[in-house]
Amino acid sequence: MQTTFSIATHGPGLTEITREVAQWLTAAPSGPALLTLMIRHTSASLLIQENADPEVQTDLREFFHRLVPPSDHPAMAYLTHTYEGPDDMPAHIKAALLPVTLSIPVLDGTMRLGTWQGLYLFEHRTARKTREIIAHLA
Amino acid sequence: MQTTFSIATHGPGLTEITREVAQWLTAAPSGPALLTLMIRHTSASLLIQENADPEVQTDLREFFHRLVPPSDHPAMAYLTHTYEGPDDMPAHIKAALLPVTLSIPVLDGTMRLGTWQGLYLFEHRTARKTREIIAHLA
Amino acid sequence: MQTTFSIATHGPGLTEITREVAQWLTAAPSGPALLTLMIRHTSASLLIQENADPEVQTDLREFFHRLVPPSDHPAMAYLTHTYEGPDDMPAHIKAALLPVTLSIPVLDGTMRLGTWQGLYLFEHRTARKTREIIAHLA
Repeated sequence: MQTTFSIATHGPGLTEITREVAQWLTAAPSGPALLTLMIRHTSASLLIQENADPEVQTDLREFFHRLVPPSDHPAMAYLTHTYEGPDDMPAHIKAALLPVTLSIPVLDGTMRLGTWQGLYLFEHRTARKTREIIAHLA
Repeated sequence: MQTTFSIATHGPGLTEITREVAQWLTAAPSGPALLTLMIRHTSASLLIQENADPEVQTDLREFFHRLVPPSDHPAMAYLTHTYEGPDDMPAHIKAALLPVTLSIPVLDGTMRLGTWQGLYLFEHRTARKTREIIAHLA
Repeated sequence: MQTTFSIATHGPGLTEITREVAQWLTAAPSGPALLTLMIRHTSASLLIQENADPEVQTDLREFFHRLVPPSDHPAMAYLTHTYEGPDDMPAHIKAALLPVTLSIPVLDGTMRLGTWQGLYLFEHRTARKTREIIAHLA
């Protein structure tokens, strides 16, 4: 059982996708299963993160913006891959630091996430994008 | 085949869980299989790391403490999610940087880890906690 | 279906392994499947990253060299695990920050990677090494 989710993003930050994924899983057979998610891009990431306070999402975006500043920042003068814009190479670095794939145990069509866990797409580019995530259930 | 491990933690640092997981796998059927582990929390992580010298574990804890200082540190003044304590938002950031899920090939009930690899829970909070890890074998 | 890939590395940096893995998958049955890769070392990583411009790979290596300098760098004076050389403990830290395992949906023997995604081994040690990667398909 495989599908593709298409998610619209609007600049750097987290977009929750828990509901879309949970809804697809309602078609899953009963019993234990394993959900795998993979994002098909090298400048965006997948995260399992806190779903309660939206300030957590803002703080995550700000931390990674400071850890990996735009390539026109003096601290990043050593970067060579700059012709796709100052947000491009930092986006690749963030996509190395953060997950591209997630593996989530499922029981009776429900992800076994903790109470405070949600699924997120973490966009690293500035421009609006449509991102594809492959979901595989077995 | 799914189970839940409950692991007690005592402040920031690594707790080895290789033995508990290996023992559960002795009930696995022969042949190839895949073990998936997922931690059900957003302020602790799972790691595959060096199991020989305990100083590696101390150094890992210290590196991440410096990379993501407590939110009352001047360098972190931009953080907004601070009401759960100075160790909370940094714990979420570390939980984004480090794995939440691990996928480990198994053969005849034995994880195919390298000689120097062990499984660890990496606690990021200061208070004592009980952490849940879901294990799925298929 | 499990196999082991042995990859020679020549110091810090990325080595593409997409072709080797894709070739092995040509023996896969038709239909959906899941590929899992795990590197059996604690001082090297697996990455899904941009496969178009080799400068991305150089910049990734340089970013992580600056984020985690050698242990004889003044900024790393707090490290205690230093007897295996100045590149050893930083290699363990990078192996914590970057993936050890990857889960990749497959369809009809083809990985469902995006257009710009390739598979890489990221070596963190200075000396030449032979690295083992376990592949599991189910």
